[in-house]
Amino acid sequence: MPEPNRRFVLAKRPDGKPDRETFERREEDVPEPEPGEALIRTLYLSVDPYMRGRMNAGESYAEPWAVGGPLRGGVVGEVVDANGSGFETGDIVTGNLEWADYATAPGSDLQPVDPDLAPISTALGVLGMPGRTAYFGTREVARPQPGDTFVVTGAAGAVGSVAGQLASMAGARVVGFAGSEEKVAFLEDDLGFDVGIDYSTTDDYRAALEDAAPDGVDAYFDNVGGEITDAVFTQLNVDARVAICGQISLYNAEELPTGPRKLPTLIEKRARVEGFLVGDFAPRFEEATRNLGRWVSAGDLEYRETVTEGLENAPEAFLGLFEGENIGKQLVKVGERDD
Amino acid sequence: MPEPNRRFVLAKRPDGKPDRETFERREEDVPEPEPGEALIRTLYLSVDPYMRGRMNAGESYAEPWAVGGPLRGGVVGEVVDANGSGFETGDIVTGNLEWADYATAPGSDLQPVDPDLAPISTALGVLGMPGRTAYFGTREVARPQPGDTFVVTGAAGAVGSVAGQLASMAGARVVGFAGSEEKVAFLEDDLGFDVGIDYSTTDDYRAALEDAAPDGVDAYFDNVGGEITDAVFTQLNVDARVAICGQISLYNAEELPTGPRKLPTLIEKRARVEGFLVGDFAPRFEEATRNLGRWVSAGDLEYRETVTEGLENAPEAFLGLFEGENIGKQLVKVGERDD
Repeated sequence: MPEPNRRFVLAKRPDGKPDRETFERREEDVPEPEPGEALIRTLYLSVDPYMRGRMNAGESYAEPWAVGGPLRGGVVGEVVDANGSGFETGDIVTGNLEWADYATAPGSDLQPVDPDLAPISTALGVLGMPGRTAYFGTREVARPQPGDTFVVTGAAGAVGSVAGQLASMAGARVVGFAGSEEKVAFLEDDLGFDVGIDYSTTDDYRAALEDAAPDGVDAYFDNVGGEITDAVFTQLNVDARVAICGQISLYNAEELPTGPRKLPTLIEKRARVEGFLVGDFAPRFEEATRNLGRWVSAGDLEYRETVTEGLENAPEAFLGLFEGENIGKQLVKVGERDD
Repeated sequence: MPEPNRRFVLAKRPDGKPDRETFERREEDVPEPEPGEALIRTLYLSVDPYMRGRMNAGESYAEPWAVGGPLRGGVVGEVVDANGSGFETGDIVTGNLEWADYATAPGSDLQPVDPDLAPISTALGVLGMPGRTAYFGTREVARPQPGDTFVVTGAAGAVGSVAGQLASMAGARVVGFAGSEEKVAFLEDDLGFDVGIDYSTTDDYRAALEDAAPDGVDAYFDNVGGEITDAVFTQLNVDARVAICGQISLYNAEELPTGPRKLPTLIEKRARVEGFLVGDFAPRFEEATRNLGRWVSAGDLEYRETVTEGLENAPEAFLGLFEGENIGKQLVKVGERDD
């Protein structure tokens, strides 16, 4: 193949906020798959907030990315050389692959994507990791009940938009925090949230929440953390459940973030706060994907995607997550599917 | 009865740390019980950290005490006028009564105490509310498993000393934080804790904990909060359970206490933090008291009491809780039992 393979590596560890210098783009030969490995041409690449953690040197739940090493993420691609991987040329697959035009992977690391079921990009969004994260975090951790008030932050994002809809389906009153007028309209008009709060134009999160959730908060799904979460904690009801999914407002902090101590509140409210990782629910991924797919097909679950064109713009798409530039799932479109 | 009844009322709400001026002692006539009420002569009065919260005006899980109104707490006393209450004169009873030499209460608010089972003072400690708090917080919230490392703060106190022993009985390695050399000796020599850490002579709680709990912390029972808790959170293992029972280090804060934000840790560790109140387990109090009594009788569960003599010294006994002056349960001995 004459075309070069563009791929991104971690140029250096960011100190605080990452920027364009965090990433280095290289042009190399298209890799040769080993026997049992497929060669995949990238169609869509997912950028996600959790990747910020992998840029740090410190130990976390996932291995840190090496400086000079590849960036990896969810990819939907087309098998261009099946090579004994168990797939066939032309198959659409998804897996955790490099940020690149082409990548290789053992067949066991890839899952098939059925293009007839839903647009293939949804395998990275509502029917992929973000959708499953919302599914388990809402149903197993935050557990909204009929009549409950459910609050979600990052509500217009890939995870929050699904979490809020699942809470609605469970019979809860749903309040979402999002960062623009357009996002609030998306929540209220397209997703059926009861109230959207535009935190970008609100000085007093607590007062806004008292208006939006006059009966207090029974279940809270947190993607953001920081001052909005401080406000939500003041409104928790007795026996409230708090699911900690993400804390994007803190990921770029250069110093250990501080805030009000919340543990006394937990005693008074007998509240439970629980962090979770979607990977811990792996044995139930099939159930989640099946249910989410069913609800999407039936029109009960809406989704939106923000698509950045071109692998070369993947860093900007990633950095935009921290500026709230996306509505719904942020994707990078890398290649066109062959027809 | 010619003797006056000494009783304490809340003189004013403390601003930060309470002091002697928070309390006003009055001398009044011994109250006359209404029909169905017993007149009780106080033998022991319990002072407990949670009472600090009731001195505040703000709404909490319990009604605030009124300025000029009585202070109340756990009492063990002798019925001196049964008056149709369902008890008999001379019965030993316990209930939530005024800080006074004499108090009245409906029979339905009193529980009998069997003086042949254990010293009657234990109805306010290991066999009373503190013991039950440790029982449910350890077994139902922190849930130590065999081989786990269990950490408890306020470890030499009425609740912590029982919690640590219950965790030992469950097969966990037990580490306790306490505030003096004498207390650490009590933990290690009398209670069988694996390690006691004297926080009064330790600059670096985290380093001390890394030594004491080299395999990390699986279950944490917190009575204290603040910087010790910050250190414990850095050592949590995956799937750790944290039971928030009390936060005595924060109760006298004049401003909203702040500290490091802990929610990112909860994601990485998939940890659960849960506040609880013993009152929510009321339907199971009998089970708890029966089991605790059995273990005390068998010598499996040790307890200690710090007894301050004289109702007039009840304020000092209460204030001493915040200085860590007690080992085990802090009681005030108000009267002698008639033989």
